[in-house]
Amino acid sequence: MSDVFDVIVIGAGPAGENVADRAARGGLSVAVVEKELAGGECSYWACIPSKTLLRPVELAAEVSRVPGLEVAPIDTAAVLGRRDAMVSRYDDGGQVEWLDSVPVTFIRGRGRLAGVRQVRVDGARDADGPLLARHAVVLATGSVPVIPPIEGLAEAEPWTNREATGVKDVPERLVVIGGGVVACEMAQALHRLGAADTTMIVRGDGLLGRVEPFAGELVHRSLTEQGVRILLGRNAVKVERPVAGGEVTVHLDDGSRVVADEILVATGRRAAVDGLGLDTVGLSRPGPVDDSMRVTGVEGGWLYAVGDVNGRNLLTHMGKYQARVCGDVIAARARGDADTLPNMRARADDVGAPQVVFTEPQVCAVGRTEARAREEGFPVRAVEYDLGGVAGASLVAEGYRGRAKAVVDTDRRVLLGVTFAGQGVAEMLHAATIAVTAEVTLDDLWHAVPAFPTISEVWLRLLEAYGM
Amino acid sequence: MSDVFDVIVIGAGPAGENVADRAARGGLSVAVVEKELAGGECSYWACIPSKTLLRPVELAAEVSRVPGLEVAPIDTAAVLGRRDAMVSRYDDGGQVEWLDSVPVTFIRGRGRLAGVRQVRVDGARDADGPLLARHAVVLATGSVPVIPPIEGLAEAEPWTNREATGVKDVPERLVVIGGGVVACEMAQALHRLGAADTTMIVRGDGLLGRVEPFAGELVHRSLTEQGVRILLGRNAVKVERPVAGGEVTVHLDDGSRVVADEILVATGRRAAVDGLGLDTVGLSRPGPVDDSMRVTGVEGGWLYAVGDVNGRNLLTHMGKYQARVCGDVIAARARGDADTLPNMRARADDVGAPQVVFTEPQVCAVGRTEARAREEGFPVRAVEYDLGGVAGASLVAEGYRGRAKAVVDTDRRVLLGVTFAGQGVAEMLHAATIAVTAEVTLDDLWHAVPAFPTISEVWLRLLEAYGM
Repeated sequence: MSDVFDVIVIGAGPAGENVADRAARGGLSVAVVEKELAGGECSYWACIPSKTLLRPVELAAEVSRVPGLEVAPIDTAAVLGRRDAMVSRYDDGGQVEWLDSVPVTFIRGRGRLAGVRQVRVDGARDADGPLLARHAVVLATGSVPVIPPIEGLAEAEPWTNREATGVKDVPERLVVIGGGVVACEMAQALHRLGAADTTMIVRGDGLLGRVEPFAGELVHRSLTEQGVRILLGRNAVKVERPVAGGEVTVHLDDGSRVVADEILVATGRRAAVDGLGLDTVGLSRPGPVDDSMRVTGVEGGWLYAVGDVNGRNLLTHMGKYQARVCGDVIAARARGDADTLPNMRARADDVGAPQVVFTEPQVCAVGRTEARAREEGFPVRAVEYDLGGVAGASLVAEGYRGRAKAVVDTDRRVLLGVTFAGQGVAEMLHAATIAVTAEVTLDDLWHAVPAFPTISEVWLRLLEAYGM
Repeated sequence: MSDVFDVIVIGAGPAGENVADRAARGGLSVAVVEKELAGGECSYWACIPSKTLLRPVELAAEVSRVPGLEVAPIDTAAVLGRRDAMVSRYDDGGQVEWLDSVPVTFIRGRGRLAGVRQVRVDGARDADGPLLARHAVVLATGSVPVIPPIEGLAEAEPWTNREATGVKDVPERLVVIGGGVVACEMAQALHRLGAADTTMIVRGDGLLGRVEPFAGELVHRSLTEQGVRILLGRNAVKVERPVAGGEVTVHLDDGSRVVADEILVATGRRAAVDGLGLDTVGLSRPGPVDDSMRVTGVEGGWLYAVGDVNGRNLLTHMGKYQARVCGDVIAARARGDADTLPNMRARADDVGAPQVVFTEPQVCAVGRTEARAREEGFPVRAVEYDLGGVAGASLVAEGYRGRAKAVVDTDRRVLLGVTFAGQGVAEMLHAATIAVTAEVTLDDLWHAVPAFPTISEVWLRLLEAYGM
């Protein structure tokens, strides 16, 4: 006998949980299938533990810039203990309880498509036959790390974000392959927590390739000053690890090599679609999706995809955003209500999703970089300002280093993108996100007076730099 | 022989400096007259030194909430040393140099009106006759502390913001009269820097009377936990200090008394108009001003007032904002250009100026409180959210305490006011300032996705609480 639900969600990460929540609040019966832990990558192996590890690193740096305060060396064991608490010791009981309370039916097992509106769950439940969805199936399986095809790398069983954020014994010598967000964040955290000898191998000519170049440069300078060795424009060509868990040697394309106790690979992620049964509904991948998160080209329009798996943005908050849209629109369609209200279409993915890099200094950006805006043909003028020149910044830190940049559409006089890099800028991002998303005009921004003496006063400086 | 300028500004605080700067950039010749230090109250005796004293207090509190970090007791001497540096050791050489570079003519002395478009400067220059202004005179003299008429108080020579921010030897026992921003900030700073026995005498039934009540309550709880004694609903009726600079006794209206080594009065400020010569142009006070900062009812419309002195807002950034408006409009009028462009009218004063209280926890707010919005007849619904329930907050601090509130105009679906109280919320304010000032609709705010895991995610929670 089959179980029937209005909506079946495969994957109980933040995106899956939110689509389930919104659909259930919309009056639908919802099942969520999860093969690992409810709460997903973000809660146990990504954002939450990485930020927990980075927080004391950030705070110690802040203290070092305020005369009159002195901080003792970081107690790594205490930090790892807090990390364990923040990931609920890898127990999803609280999340499952929350799902129950929504109410959403939580089914633990590996879910996969098994034809139109059908989902099979591997494991004990398999004999019961597939679950049936009256209205919609939502794919929310997230993403998995890419292990690049470097000789010997896979065999060396490298760390990914999971082992790095879950670190128990910090290796003394660490080699990191990659220069993006995860690479920078974990190199910094692990280095400050004990990996005295940390080397990053970066293919590109700078860190954080997707943001404005000055931001990557600031992080590069900070990491270097802290003692992280960064090799730019180098490729690993071969990895040797004769003894599992033992010393690892990475050979580079310039003939040099790096020897370490552990290797972390952080070179990107790909949609988690293995074994998802896409073939049973005639698909090879779960996208593209339209702005209601419906997978295009599926007859009957019953299949949706939210979060990392749909290829739009690899960001928790964007997955959750898509999930809100998706849950609302599925409920509306199930009821036969209007399905084109503003909350039922995602429009924030394309303008350039907001993102924070929690390194010290922090980097945050929303919208388009200057380069991207020009490529896309906008009439562009960019303005920059040294954050260290803002009174609020000099108050929070001696020798504050940071920079802000705004990319302006000169025709419409709205912001296409904003980037901040510097100590404690993460909470400054949302002002930019509102300004960019809602297309607030420069004339209106001129009357939004930043409070003195906050670092946000840079908004005034940027507008002045534009000639206002 | 008289000197003639297009514009004469009396007062070289932030407001005066900015009006001079904008007018000069508009092509006018400008003189600024200052009887004390160029840079004004804010630079030497208010925002800058108070925030410098508060920063280590804030940071030490933040550290105490992150396991794995431990901070040594605050080194008060080092903090006071940094304060001395931040106020340039009360030397305005740098500011005068900047004024020179604009260029603006800096004249040191006490400026006062001496009839239509005339300004006299006391001191050496007096014999030279009055300065003459071709187009405008701008009053930017700021404000002075109010010393309430309590028996013996003035004779006790109490500290005001000047002595408190300029403290050299922190008194062991401190009594503070007042419960507003200056009182809370300085009580906290001085207490943590050595005034172990600190008592606040507050007339009202809570701290920070002008913001949402929960904000004052959070600060009250924090101060109390740190050991500050707060007496609410009490009035000082008599002050005794038999020996100048010696022990001071404050008698309260309930018959009790507080004995301390020093007394700080922080009960508000009033416009600095003494000796300003308002009578020579037929005025008793320098306001009201219209939205171009022109004093109403002055024939010929040549007199302007910006900053604290005009009674609009006692906030540095609002004074600077008014000054930008004023400098631009004076320049336009002098040229005979259109004088009604958006940058030539202040519209941010009335909606509720943004303000940050730099206590720990911080408080910030913009727009109207719920009570004020209701009084003014708006159709109001207010939503609140516990900041401690936001993932980003729990990452920055164990046991994070804080709260956010949004006041919504239910007809137009825009924000009338936003308040945040909690650790590190100061930089979250500008998002609210943009949303309130530019009247960004809730539907647009819904698509401004807060980055995970920042504390700004509370924006999402507030919108959800509203039913979105």
